[in-house]
Amino acid sequence: MATEFVKNAVGRLVPTTINGELVIPFQGVGKYQPTGRKYAPPIASCANFPSDGNKLVATLKEALQKAGLKDGMTISTHHHFRNGDLISNAIFDIAKELGVKNLRWFPSASFPCHEYLIRYLEDGTISHIEGSMNGQLGKFCTQGKMKKTAVLRSHGGRYQAVQDGEVKIDIAVIGASSADAFGNANGLNGPSASGLLGFALADSQYADKVIVVTDNLVPFPCYPWQIQGNYVDYTVKVDKVGIPEKIVSGTTEVTKSPDRLLIAELTARFCEEAGLIQDGFSFQAGAGGTALSIGNFFADIMRKKGIKAKFARGGSNKYLVDALEEGLIEFILDGQTFDLDGVRSMRDNANHVWTSPFTSYNYHGKGNFASMVDVVILGATEVDLNFNANVVSHSDGYLLHGIGGWQNCLFSKNVILPIPLFRDRIPVIKDEVTTICGPGELIDIIVTERGVAINPLRTDLIERMKGSGLPIKTIQQLKEEADAICGPSQKPNLADDVVAAIKWVDGTVIDVVRRVIE
Amino acid sequence: MATEFVKNAVGRLVPTTINGELVIPFQGVGKYQPTGRKYAPPIASCANFPSDGNKLVATLKEALQKAGLKDGMTISTHHHFRNGDLISNAIFDIAKELGVKNLRWFPSASFPCHEYLIRYLEDGTISHIEGSMNGQLGKFCTQGKMKKTAVLRSHGGRYQAVQDGEVKIDIAVIGASSADAFGNANGLNGPSASGLLGFALADSQYADKVIVVTDNLVPFPCYPWQIQGNYVDYTVKVDKVGIPEKIVSGTTEVTKSPDRLLIAELTARFCEEAGLIQDGFSFQAGAGGTALSIGNFFADIMRKKGIKAKFARGGSNKYLVDALEEGLIEFILDGQTFDLDGVRSMRDNANHVWTSPFTSYNYHGKGNFASMVDVVILGATEVDLNFNANVVSHSDGYLLHGIGGWQNCLFSKNVILPIPLFRDRIPVIKDEVTTICGPGELIDIIVTERGVAINPLRTDLIERMKGSGLPIKTIQQLKEEADAICGPSQKPNLADDVVAAIKWVDGTVIDVVRRVIE
Repeated sequence: MATEFVKNAVGRLVPTTINGELVIPFQGVGKYQPTGRKYAPPIASCANFPSDGNKLVATLKEALQKAGLKDGMTISTHHHFRNGDLISNAIFDIAKELGVKNLRWFPSASFPCHEYLIRYLEDGTISHIEGSMNGQLGKFCTQGKMKKTAVLRSHGGRYQAVQDGEVKIDIAVIGASSADAFGNANGLNGPSASGLLGFALADSQYADKVIVVTDNLVPFPCYPWQIQGNYVDYTVKVDKVGIPEKIVSGTTEVTKSPDRLLIAELTARFCEEAGLIQDGFSFQAGAGGTALSIGNFFADIMRKKGIKAKFARGGSNKYLVDALEEGLIEFILDGQTFDLDGVRSMRDNANHVWTSPFTSYNYHGKGNFASMVDVVILGATEVDLNFNANVVSHSDGYLLHGIGGWQNCLFSKNVILPIPLFRDRIPVIKDEVTTICGPGELIDIIVTERGVAINPLRTDLIERMKGSGLPIKTIQQLKEEADAICGPSQKPNLADDVVAAIKWVDGTVIDVVRRVIE
Repeated sequence: MATEFVKNAVGRLVPTTINGELVIPFQGVGKYQPTGRKYAPPIASCANFPSDGNKLVATLKEALQKAGLKDGMTISTHHHFRNGDLISNAIFDIAKELGVKNLRWFPSASFPCHEYLIRYLEDGTISHIEGSMNGQLGKFCTQGKMKKTAVLRSHGGRYQAVQDGEVKIDIAVIGASSADAFGNANGLNGPSASGLLGFALADSQYADKVIVVTDNLVPFPCYPWQIQGNYVDYTVKVDKVGIPEKIVSGTTEVTKSPDRLLIAELTARFCEEAGLIQDGFSFQAGAGGTALSIGNFFADIMRKKGIKAKFARGGSNKYLVDALEEGLIEFILDGQTFDLDGVRSMRDNANHVWTSPFTSYNYHGKGNFASMVDVVILGATEVDLNFNANVVSHSDGYLLHGIGGWQNCLFSKNVILPIPLFRDRIPVIKDEVTTICGPGELIDIIVTERGVAINPLRTDLIERMKGSGLPIKTIQQLKEEADAICGPSQKPNLADDVVAAIKWVDGTVIDVVRRVIE
């Protein structure tokens, strides 16, 4: 198939095929209507599984061989072990040893520990990655060195792609901090506890073969079963499934930067003045220092007003857990734990609930949780004058990180991006962002250290903030201030070749990443 | 298609089509290998659901109309409300009012309260039932009055049939004692609490349209979400979803009949002498008086030996809950609560775990829990000399009740049927049972008040019981004793017409029920 390029609904030229398969250009928010049916995995039979439930095989290598590992397959992993993951690299060491080629790696995210896999991208063991790429992996991809085009999806988009059969997983390998021989597994217990396993849910449900790997094998039943053994083909006991001190980042602290503290305070004051913080409201912040500070400001406001939040969405951390345990928040609905307090709380607090990309983010479900959240705090690398935002690439064109739940969270009722006006003297507000990850119509408020811009579409908020003492400005004003300080932005030096595609939550292509000319 | 009859692997003549659709005759335990793929429901999109998560419609009628209720559809319900269900009858009242005809009712079980629906079977609103039929519904069916052939499945077989696309559910109506407007639902809380909603899991996952009906609407999130709102199309608030005092049977008491107590004691002694009751063992009994007594005897043995069970399977009741709370059982893995103690314990005890037919029973999964259970205690209406057993019809040919989890439990390591040697002077052991529901090769031990018969296939148990003081006999001996007392059995007076088919756990046809000539 010859690849043609068409202009999509946000004005980006995107290809009609990726890696030889037809794709659909982004058609606008809520415009694409899927007409197909979900992916239908083969029917299994208990006749082919041990009646005593013992699916243990001796090694991961044996499990991969029994699962039929061969050239061209798609191998999936999850990222709950974050930078302490020991499984993904081990899989491709085995593939290399067995001489298997052209594998598609389909992680729910990658971390610096996975830079190790560059050797296998170079030697052809791995053909390409569909998932986030940070640091050296991102650089490798942006330099055009990957044999096929990368595809980046949000957490919800990854579930959608698997559910809808866009990505057919041949073998899912699910590392678990606790599992029984039947394959019931969780991330709550054991030396490598990472909280939960939600990112592997779709993999367990839809992959042809599912392997659970644990260093903490417990007698049946391993409960809670965040992954259900009834989906699992083989279980493997290894010495170590993750490096505990790298699984969670210990403690993520609130920011000490005066500029970022100011942004956090402005954000919280905006939310209060705009009436977004009401009894029974809900919010989601991230794990960065600014977001944590905003969470703390929210807690102060709730204490002051004598109200509480119905729920907060995780990623969880000690600040959120403190607020839960203080009674300021009724539920934490959590997709991943960012620190040990999060892990502990999820294990011990009945109202600290593990969720999955299916419940929280999958756009091809009958609704999801993300759109019910009152206030969401997100980051961005760049924003343009139409509020379109970028979260994957830097202004020099390099892929920086994955989408995570970012696109999915844009469906919240009030989306706020607290961002510095410039980073390393490079303005964050552009005429045009390097990569569009989210359409501006979904982004409501930009908070910078020099002022707050409200999306003109949100006439209600603009009205409500009339007469406010906060520095409400237009996004043009903010851009002009930044440009006056930093000088005009330089465009990145990009070739025409597409190295990665960015999928929207509905599986359509919202933008591409092009090779950087070095 | 002309219906032909073929002899299946247990020697029964079964049709090759049922209601115009091809079916597969039973091929032997573990012999049929499915080659297809799971049923693939249509892909949904959040674009078509309210972003605030509020799926409430005013009435069940409106929900059914929005779901597109029309002639010939399949409507599913669950039976967690047991004899207190107010939803199933209401659905067909609405269908009647709307003039909709030829509906297939696909309940997970029916109860005496559903005799009300005979009027709709008679007037053509309902064409037929696929699910258990007791009392008057069973009689109606056995008299050949239903317009199409009934199909009876086990709980696991029902999940399998839905998962595999054998039964396509058009509209699932899920009554819940607690739900939010998004459709997250559980059976744990509210005035109609019934414990759990596992029987509706397949319905929620695979039905084209899903309606959740509750009388206890709570703010999002309704947690735990035993049914996930992401599968739900519409929610409805009604005044009353069930009659609490009929949902749970209050308290089911241990038997006081001397014969049944003797059977219970013999069963427990057999298990102890055969070495089946070991530290970490697992068992499943039922809710009948004999089964409850056996559970109590098991508890005595555990106390005496100073051991505990790893898990017991529910249906749960106060005796099982007492044993859990005493520490004699580590986990209850429960499919349905039979009394209020069960409901309370499932809500309050972390180790009282709600399961589903998927985890416990689905034969077309990658294993299930049933085969891991050490000892299972089941009932039967009839057993033949080859240990084949009947659980659905009486010796007069009438359908008595559904299969429940009975077939699924036959995969336990040790299957024990404690049964009286005769009922109302009709011997229970036959040359040939009226309806084969389970093949004899899976049934290990028959315990009667006059002796214990071990299946000759279980040479290990026969060996272990040599020299036992228990009255170990052959099944022939037991039959001869019963016949000597009661006289030989009379055959039921049956026509050739098939009124119902009995599916095996893999979807094949193990037997049929024929019309009774009255």
